[in-house]
Amino acid sequence: MSAAPSEPLLLTPGPLTTSRTVREAMLRDWGSRDRDFVALNAAVRRRLTALAGAEASHVTVPLQGSGTFVVEAMLGTLVPREGKLLVLVNGAYGERMLKIAACHGRASVALRTPEDVPNDPDALDRALAADPAVTHVAVVHCETTSGILNPLPAIAAVTARHGRRLLIDAMSAFGALPLDAREIRFEAVAASANKCLEGVPGVAFAIVEREALLAAAGNSPSLSLDLHDQYLAMEKNGQWRFTPPTHVLAAFQRALNEHEAEGGVEGRGRRYRENCRILVEGMRALGFATLLPDDLQAPIIVTFRMPADPAFRFEEFYDRLRRRGFVIYPGKLTVAPSFRIGCIGRIGAAEMRRALAAVAETMKEMGVASGRPAD
Amino acid sequence: MSAAPSEPLLLTPGPLTTSRTVREAMLRDWGSRDRDFVALNAAVRRRLTALAGAEASHVTVPLQGSGTFVVEAMLGTLVPREGKLLVLVNGAYGERMLKIAACHGRASVALRTPEDVPNDPDALDRALAADPAVTHVAVVHCETTSGILNPLPAIAAVTARHGRRLLIDAMSAFGALPLDAREIRFEAVAASANKCLEGVPGVAFAIVEREALLAAAGNSPSLSLDLHDQYLAMEKNGQWRFTPPTHVLAAFQRALNEHEAEGGVEGRGRRYRENCRILVEGMRALGFATLLPDDLQAPIIVTFRMPADPAFRFEEFYDRLRRRGFVIYPGKLTVAPSFRIGCIGRIGAAEMRRALAAVAETMKEMGVASGRPAD
Repeated sequence: MSAAPSEPLLLTPGPLTTSRTVREAMLRDWGSRDRDFVALNAAVRRRLTALAGAEASHVTVPLQGSGTFVVEAMLGTLVPREGKLLVLVNGAYGERMLKIAACHGRASVALRTPEDVPNDPDALDRALAADPAVTHVAVVHCETTSGILNPLPAIAAVTARHGRRLLIDAMSAFGALPLDAREIRFEAVAASANKCLEGVPGVAFAIVEREALLAAAGNSPSLSLDLHDQYLAMEKNGQWRFTPPTHVLAAFQRALNEHEAEGGVEGRGRRYRENCRILVEGMRALGFATLLPDDLQAPIIVTFRMPADPAFRFEEFYDRLRRRGFVIYPGKLTVAPSFRIGCIGRIGAAEMRRALAAVAETMKEMGVASGRPAD
Repeated sequence: MSAAPSEPLLLTPGPLTTSRTVREAMLRDWGSRDRDFVALNAAVRRRLTALAGAEASHVTVPLQGSGTFVVEAMLGTLVPREGKLLVLVNGAYGERMLKIAACHGRASVALRTPEDVPNDPDALDRALAADPAVTHVAVVHCETTSGILNPLPAIAAVTARHGRRLLIDAMSAFGALPLDAREIRFEAVAASANKCLEGVPGVAFAIVEREALLAAAGNSPSLSLDLHDQYLAMEKNGQWRFTPPTHVLAAFQRALNEHEAEGGVEGRGRRYRENCRILVEGMRALGFATLLPDDLQAPIIVTFRMPADPAFRFEEFYDRLRRRGFVIYPGKLTVAPSFRIGCIGRIGAAEMRRALAAVAETMKEMGVASGRPAD
């Protein structure tokens, strides 16, 4: 299940470690307007819609670029010029949606909680009651700034009760955490090939209510990021408007096969939860403390508080783990020094245990007695 | 030099046939914030700037997505809100730049010639003299709608003489046709990994005058497509703002090595000119007529007029060539029925001759006596 020994294992929120077979799917060239590729693209779109339980109501629109590209495209295409966006913020990805709305000249408002506190459905209820101008609510399913799981079902219920529309950034959760259009009302969800679906980076997608998408003509302040236009063109002849990343799409199809073979969202989620459990238990045994209590922790990426031991210098810790073949991730919290270790990608219990052994050896080398943080 | 026998050869303007070694460069995973990838990315950027002879004046800013994404980013970032864009139009890619300017709410004007007539530097001279509000001129180096080569040096000279700024869409020409910042004055040129540089699709880039880029803060109507922001972030720590297509970048580095080994722009251009000569001579021997006279034809993609013989149906011709292992390209002309065959990608004289033999056999099967068009 691991990568070639010469390559490091990526314990990051993406790009992440993919399977050799996913990468090998990139060994052939595809004509982007040729029927083989048109069929591949159609199959990928159908399967993504099905993964969200959304065949009856939604369509999948793939987009070139990173996850942020499709989040920007979702906001730009679906929030009309006279609309107003309320963003639930408890980390960098919520902040980024506010920045995008400002860039687009759309009215917006933030409803904030601290980075280690989930979005608050009751506060949302009050905010929507108080501000009838809000047309759309945006939420980040798993905020990888901290690794926190936000209460999506409750947020969706409040939003629907107020007759507003929900836009979900499910980038780091889609494919491993349940999200079903028959259970949760949403106008659109944005995600990427390169997170829990374990494809390679270069393509992202939105799953959008068909009626809302058809009504969104002329909203987008960008041609490239116009999901309405992208959808209409693709419906016409199955082709992309502008050159698609063909090899990346082929890898994505292969990754979806492997996702299905693992048991879909259920099976993938089970492996990640096990990865996360092993990681957290192992790190706690070394004295490290997680930022979040276990009930708020999504099995995607774990934030550890910086150890108090003066012998612990993060740069050195990173470099030494890197030489042992493990790439971890710096912290992104504004509230406290921290670092992060991911649980996603083509890695399992054996890799998590090897990573923990490498952490223990590295601490010994550095003369760090314990990972315990201050206070 | 050819692809595996099971895959068709792509005689298209991109995605095109790449080398096996370029595709094999995608077999490893990269941490996007890890030092190995940071070094790879820096090397790619440096080499692209050098390819344009622009180290003293310009910087390369790579961008996720297709060529259109970076053209939109170039226009959105560099044409200020109070600016005005004049677009030289003789095909779909000029029209697309006008569409982007409209989408951005920027003032714009078109200076049109027919699809088989190059941009007119004298007309540009008069237009700029008559309209001092124009701040930027946009030109398509090789317009793949027809395959025509536009007179870039003359356009650049006129634009500079009037003190306006030149933005070049060199998508389908960069790497095979000369473009040197020491000889031609331009503010920015946009191109892609997946044309004459023979990488895979998924990343594009702009080479931008450093001073102009630094002065472009706050212009962009998009966060994802803001080249100013992308540049500043990358200068800070060598990393991309948002997840880069790591595998595609690794393939691009390999493609640049192979470009250099072939003798750079000179060597690459020589092979394409030979491909083009063999194609045009061979097709003419079968009765086909090119849209363009030879002196206007860029060695990138050739437009052939549709044969008059009623036995010639393009869909069938395409399908039969496809079964023989060659993917050609439909026409995009508005003025006359046509189809196109590309000369670029990892193909040489042997592949062009095999393609010509397949065309001859296909005509025989279809009962088409000659490729001669009407009149």
